[in-house]
Amino acid sequence: MVGTVPRLTVDRKRLEETINSLARIGMTGNGSERTAYSIKEMRAKDVLTHLMRRIGLAVKIDGVGNVFGRTKQGRGPVVMIGSHIDTVPGGGRFDGVVGVASGIEVVKTIIEGNIELRHPIEVCAFSAEESSRFGVSTLGSAVVAGELDAKDIEPLRDRRGTRLGEILARLGGAHDAINRSKRDPSDLHAYLELHVEQGPILEAEGKKIGVVSAISASSRLRVRFLGRADHSGTTPMNLRKDALIAASELILAVERICKSEVSKVVGTVGAVNVIPNAMNVIPGTVELGIDIRSVVSELKKKAADLVLDEARRIAERRHIGLEASIIKEDQPVTLNKEIVALFEDVCRSSGIPYVDMISGAGHDAMKMARITRSGLVFVPSRRGLSHNPDEWTDLGDIEVGANCLLQAALRLAT
Amino acid sequence: MVGTVPRLTVDRKRLEETINSLARIGMTGNGSERTAYSIKEMRAKDVLTHLMRRIGLAVKIDGVGNVFGRTKQGRGPVVMIGSHIDTVPGGGRFDGVVGVASGIEVVKTIIEGNIELRHPIEVCAFSAEESSRFGVSTLGSAVVAGELDAKDIEPLRDRRGTRLGEILARLGGAHDAINRSKRDPSDLHAYLELHVEQGPILEAEGKKIGVVSAISASSRLRVRFLGRADHSGTTPMNLRKDALIAASELILAVERICKSEVSKVVGTVGAVNVIPNAMNVIPGTVELGIDIRSVVSELKKKAADLVLDEARRIAERRHIGLEASIIKEDQPVTLNKEIVALFEDVCRSSGIPYVDMISGAGHDAMKMARITRSGLVFVPSRRGLSHNPDEWTDLGDIEVGANCLLQAALRLAT
Repeated sequence: MVGTVPRLTVDRKRLEETINSLARIGMTGNGSERTAYSIKEMRAKDVLTHLMRRIGLAVKIDGVGNVFGRTKQGRGPVVMIGSHIDTVPGGGRFDGVVGVASGIEVVKTIIEGNIELRHPIEVCAFSAEESSRFGVSTLGSAVVAGELDAKDIEPLRDRRGTRLGEILARLGGAHDAINRSKRDPSDLHAYLELHVEQGPILEAEGKKIGVVSAISASSRLRVRFLGRADHSGTTPMNLRKDALIAASELILAVERICKSEVSKVVGTVGAVNVIPNAMNVIPGTVELGIDIRSVVSELKKKAADLVLDEARRIAERRHIGLEASIIKEDQPVTLNKEIVALFEDVCRSSGIPYVDMISGAGHDAMKMARITRSGLVFVPSRRGLSHNPDEWTDLGDIEVGANCLLQAALRLAT
Repeated sequence: MVGTVPRLTVDRKRLEETINSLARIGMTGNGSERTAYSIKEMRAKDVLTHLMRRIGLAVKIDGVGNVFGRTKQGRGPVVMIGSHIDTVPGGGRFDGVVGVASGIEVVKTIIEGNIELRHPIEVCAFSAEESSRFGVSTLGSAVVAGELDAKDIEPLRDRRGTRLGEILARLGGAHDAINRSKRDPSDLHAYLELHVEQGPILEAEGKKIGVVSAISASSRLRVRFLGRADHSGTTPMNLRKDALIAASELILAVERICKSEVSKVVGTVGAVNVIPNAMNVIPGTVELGIDIRSVVSELKKKAADLVLDEARRIAERRHIGLEASIIKEDQPVTLNKEIVALFEDVCRSSGIPYVDMISGAGHDAMKMARITRSGLVFVPSRRGLSHNPDEWTDLGDIEVGANCLLQAALRLAT
């Protein structure tokens, strides 16, 4: 049927209901809170399973709790449409949910349209896309893509000390089941994901769809300045070893380096730990968590090196100690050119204003790209806000995104 | 007997034992931890009472738990020798204890020397000199000096929500008893205090005694920068409102202002609260606690004004919100010139290398100066370290200080 794809469209009202039925679990005012593997996220997966079965999908849950719902029609490698339904603490209604709910709506629309599928379609909710609980992001898709296996993830612990291995065992995901969650590339035809942008670009440019060509990766640095905690009243200014002043110099240097010295890089000091953090004590130790991102590995490395050089210069000039290390260094991912072209073509032929862009945030598509042709499209986030209860995307914009996903899925699966 | 004061000296070994008998209560490795009104501080007051009674002092505990031990000899206004035995969490062995233990040793030496006293001597341990528990420092001496009364202190709560009024009522210090703790100026002849310096100056200058002429006061500012918490990966550098970068500029400005723009002032940003404080989120809100001290009110005010001006300039330039206020503004205290001259004379005539200095930290002497002639001397703190388990003063230096206190007390009381 390629070339004669019927102009199906999703049902906006029904899509809204699906989003609401997931987003209301763990609702916090305007936002939602469903930490990975929490009771609330489990409850949302139950609801999802129910929604999938109701439209006739065969549901499978793998060893890390990823939920898959597959159409009975179609044979051979599947077209997968996925995202996640876990959230950060204090998260929003849309991050992740939009992609899974749209996947459900796309399949519903195809089934109701009596479209004949050559390839089966699988709607998927990956576990623990957010790193908040176990410090590892896109965990579920990383296991599916074979990047992580049981021995990597079982030892992970949350802040309370609970081992992920224990949680998975309780859910029935024993060691072997985790490793069996890896999917074979030959089993997959393509992977599609719709996600909220979580950034301000679409809104600023007045576009409805962002077709993502690459996903930037982060280098994370941990820098600790070791000064001396002295009394704030009795220590003359010139006899101080104030770790916070050194840290402040570095915070400003990170901005300078990423704003003007190195292009195509963003750098953020998001985490600060001041010890002892009392008004009447000169900070003795200050620890900074620095995140540097780019879609170009070399530029990311260059910026990180400049930051570390600057940290050394500051520590030397102020005669204070320094411990600095790169604690994580990911590689940027280029998404599949055919799928990018497919999404562009869908937008053009549907008259949707779109823009090619890169993603500054990591997504499950990044992991799935290791094992199949993968594509990712964004819908606008109001004021770029995300990981925030006030995160917002207009329903009309989500509908545009879901229709874009529907057309792409039809072209791939029929 | 004035003019023919015998050359009595304290017993170093006995002084060490007294220090140890107090410092070992709540021992934490090298340091001590006896939070105000904790079981440990109460236990230390019991031991102190016992030590006082053993040398024949009449013990009285007032409505806020200040402990006084008075010689039976002498009439009329008392010469008071005091300090405190409460500590900060993770405190040292010497802060406070040195003054109280030396007071005990001075009185013991005078009693054993059969010196006839014209004025009684009272050794005193004030309650809650440290602000750690209730946010108010020199609480016990402020009540004695009439600066605070029952209605001021009863509503104070610690972090667990425990009301100081309840604690005092349980200890027998009901409302009236608290107010009766105020001492009448006519009841006092002078107040003397020996304390560890808690700063690096005596060690740096090779002096054994610091004769304190004035105690600096602090202005405390609370500055809150209100930016916007965005995703660290998806928000371009030029669209950010990073509250931490603004805060870092102000931290450097505080150093610059107090180091070069305004003399005789020290300024510290000791407390930082970053919200949400996550590696992948641009800091939306940063709160700074700033402490500015001087013995000259005008200079302190000038520095605080410059800091607030700078905060406004930074917020404006970066288009982010600002809430800034002065949350506390104390007045510097000049100590009594006669007592300063007396301590100087004692040092000169005993051949003790001394230096006139100001105190950057607050002490009970600051409150007692409101109602009587008050003096304060320092002994060296190794590396200026205090409020730290590794706080250290050599016993020989404490002995020098105690002898200095003994001579001053003799000149005042005989």
